[in-house]
Amino acid sequence: MSTPVVVQEDTRGVLTLTLSRPEVRNAMSLEMVLALRTALAEAEAGGRVRVVVLRGAGGHFCAGADIADMAAARARLAEDPKAIEKVSAAFGELCAAFAATGLATVALLEGSVMGGGLGLACVADVAIAATSAVFRLPETSLGLVPAQIAPFLVERLGPSQARRLVVCGGKLDAHAALAVGLVHELHATGALDHALEKVLLDILRCAPGAVAASKALVGQARWQPAAGLVAHAAEVFSRAALGPEGVEGTTAFLERRAAAWAPR
Amino acid sequence: MSTPVVVQEDTRGVLTLTLSRPEVRNAMSLEMVLALRTALAEAEAGGRVRVVVLRGAGGHFCAGADIADMAAARARLAEDPKAIEKVSAAFGELCAAFAATGLATVALLEGSVMGGGLGLACVADVAIAATSAVFRLPETSLGLVPAQIAPFLVERLGPSQARRLVVCGGKLDAHAALAVGLVHELHATGALDHALEKVLLDILRCAPGAVAASKALVGQARWQPAAGLVAHAAEVFSRAALGPEGVEGTTAFLERRAAAWAPR
Amino acid sequence: MSTPVVVQEDTRGVLTLTLSRPEVRNAMSLEMVLALRTALAEAEAGGRVRVVVLRGAGGHFCAGADIADMAAARARLAEDPKAIEKVSAAFGELCAAFAATGLATVALLEGSVMGGGLGLACVADVAIAATSAVFRLPETSLGLVPAQIAPFLVERLGPSQARRLVVCGGKLDAHAALAVGLVHELHATGALDHALEKVLLDILRCAPGAVAASKALVGQARWQPAAGLVAHAAEVFSRAALGPEGVEGTTAFLERRAAAWAPR
Repeated sequence: MSTPVVVQEDTRGVLTLTLSRPEVRNAMSLEMVLALRTALAEAEAGGRVRVVVLRGAGGHFCAGADIADMAAARARLAEDPKAIEKVSAAFGELCAAFAATGLATVALLEGSVMGGGLGLACVADVAIAATSAVFRLPETSLGLVPAQIAPFLVERLGPSQARRLVVCGGKLDAHAALAVGLVHELHATGALDHALEKVLLDILRCAPGAVAASKALVGQARWQPAAGLVAHAAEVFSRAALGPEGVEGTTAFLERRAAAWAPR
Repeated sequence: MSTPVVVQEDTRGVLTLTLSRPEVRNAMSLEMVLALRTALAEAEAGGRVRVVVLRGAGGHFCAGADIADMAAARARLAEDPKAIEKVSAAFGELCAAFAATGLATVALLEGSVMGGGLGLACVADVAIAATSAVFRLPETSLGLVPAQIAPFLVERLGPSQARRLVVCGGKLDAHAALAVGLVHELHATGALDHALEKVLLDILRCAPGAVAASKALVGQARWQPAAGLVAHAAEVFSRAALGPEGVEGTTAFLERRAAAWAPR
Repeated sequence: MSTPVVVQEDTRGVLTLTLSRPEVRNAMSLEMVLALRTALAEAEAGGRVRVVVLRGAGGHFCAGADIADMAAARARLAEDPKAIEKVSAAFGELCAAFAATGLATVALLEGSVMGGGLGLACVADVAIAATSAVFRLPETSLGLVPAQIAPFLVERLGPSQARRLVVCGGKLDAHAALAVGLVHELHATGALDHALEKVLLDILRCAPGAVAASKALVGQARWQPAAGLVAHAAEVFSRAALGPEGVEGTTAFLERRAAAWAPR
């Protein structure tokens, strides 16, 4: 039985997905892409998971696309001229699925955070990095385009820093990554798990349905002027306030106790 | 005669609106929402006000929505199933009105800046905060959604930090609020009024019509690519240059004197 | 023979355009606007230039629009009521052309960076500034509107900081310009050329076609949700991977040598 390329661990509503190809700094293979998508889809369908944590095995997050996969797709081109497009689209769909999920997502970033790995880091709701992490977008220096990553760079960094990174071959140390907003928190490697635990507690104190609805509204607000969202936002607010989470949350607040969904 | 929940003071073109329910840290009641909208509409119509300053009485800006109002809306649900939606929409329309006004707006932030108060802070053109101010978006931890606030979080912080805040229950001290761009300036509490005065002088040196036209263009530029705005921008520029403000402004500049609208 | 208002120097794929009216701190005349547009169009058509560097002669970048040009346009108004609009549109089209180019662009900012000069600084992919540079958006204080600049302010700074700048008359020292993201790097004046050389090396290590394709995708991603871009991004990626740059880049990587386009 082979070791899975994504190791799953599921406890108190937190699903940890560990990219596990440490011999290649967890380079993103097609198998890994598909395993991550399946794991996310199952977590969304299962109804028990509230937070998905992405991390890497062996001290690295992810060194980007797997060159072997690329070579294999290239070799298949005679029979399937779209082989490379398909590999790229599979990764793009993975990023889009993570960006669209109503579950909370956290990326724990150590060592190499390159190419597609940097893309995944950009889609997580919270990105926690080790001060020793190294960020890199090597595509343009290889004659390639960080094509599926570009939209998430823009979302995370804004168009100005995104453009600068692709033009300059995107080398950033962890402090620069924090300064441009690629990551939200920096910690010494030894303190990463403690920092993750703190973020998880913050997230678990928030109601899962409210988190999903809030994420959806933030997503819409990027594409629609505020004035046009007032009526929809009022409906979303009312639904939450009258729903079980709103009732439990405000009641718990008035009774000075933790809400049903919150860790004790 | 009852004390108004919003105290107005109007001098040299600056209208100060002070949220005045210090016993509840200026929690935003429906009455307050309506009073703020009316005050803004009157200021826009009156033609004398150039800057609106939002601040709070008693050392706090605003602790968010009033729980009593919520309870009242809930109690009315049998007769009016949309009672909660209406309260939410009223607040959303207030934010949208402040975001759309051609008047300059400044928020002076002390103490609690929570929920709807944080939303108002996000719509002001300039947000000046005390280093002791505490920012909080508690909605998701209460099972609620910061629904009307979401669009203004996105506008102020970008989608990445906005999403992070709603997912994590949004606790920020003043330095973190500055780092993510929620506020523009930090000062010791005792230096806040001096800082406000400086910002007001900067604003009052700018021509009111030019400020309104510039704000409108910045608003449009968020939703339309630059290339498509060139012709419209040229018209706006020409109109300003040939109008009374443009003539006075450039003349005053050449004559090395303050323009008619500027403080002496 | 008169000295050109834009001095061109072209070496190793780097075209340096130096605004050269030092007696007026390189104020942007219509002649200069047209010379810059022509230079960019020729560089794009020629196929040899990979990077365009914008800088100013005599220790200043650009003090904004030329008042004399304005006066001339005003004097022509009787015969041409759109004279001012045309001057404004010409500048807007220059900015739009620089923002849309597939070539990499760098601005080297010293001394005065005002009005239209600040606009140009906002469209460059990389903005390197001297710590002594002074940024200013004086339009609204002159009764004018930074109309053609507004879209690029929003792109560079986000809508919140853009609005704040136009409302407050936009004075920023170099450190503030870095903090809001108007510039990407700060250096002592004496170290500017060394910093530029480093950025140029980073850019020249990236493949020109890949840079152009990446810039285009970043541009699209500002206006379209990521999920809708997956298929297009996959095509762009595949085209790059199968094209000469992708083949050379990945081959050079595997052979541990510099790619054909990279400086030795």
